[in-house]
Amino acid sequence: MNAFRVEVRVMPRAALLDPQGQAVEHALQALGFGEVGRVRIGKHLVLELKAASRAEALARARVMCDRLLANPVTEDYEVAVDGEASR
Amino acid sequence: MNAFRVEVRVMPRAALLDPQGQAVEHALQALGFGEVGRVRIGKHLVLELKAASRAEALARARVMCDRLLANPVTEDYEVAVDGEASR
Repeated sequence: MNAFRVEVRVMPRAALLDPQGQAVEHALQALGFGEVGRVRIGKHLVLELKAASRAEALARARVMCDRLLANPVTEDYEVAVDGEASR
Repeated sequence: MNAFRVEVRVMPRAALLDPQGQAVEHALQALGFGEVGRVRIGKHLVLELKAASRAEALARARVMCDRLLANPVTEDYEVAVDGEASR
């Protein structure tokens, strides 16, 4: 088994409202950052994971996203296996 | 002025507790993902920004992080200017 560092990005779908992003957009404009347009906010997760291979780490992380980490109705996710430390 | 897409990642500092990450770590293990070790959760922001240059977009985004987007006591951030669409 090797230890992998998996990076997961979960973002609200482009077509959906993102109230957190809109709040930050308005706050930035109120602070004088008039050059800011649309703001979208999602989550970034870093998971330490044991797996036999990089491909298995990626596959398991995708299952975790489908089952818990992302809401399939409202969010999209991307998974990257970032670093590899053999064990 | 050009339009830039700026990506900002805000993560809890490594030395600090991350209760949201711990909650997800325990939930994943309870769901049978025993291979999961430490989980850290932060924010990922995507900002559309007008600026004269890529360097200016980066500099302005860093000021936004310092003033609003990240908590300097508890969080670290990274900024990347991702794509460029001239206008």
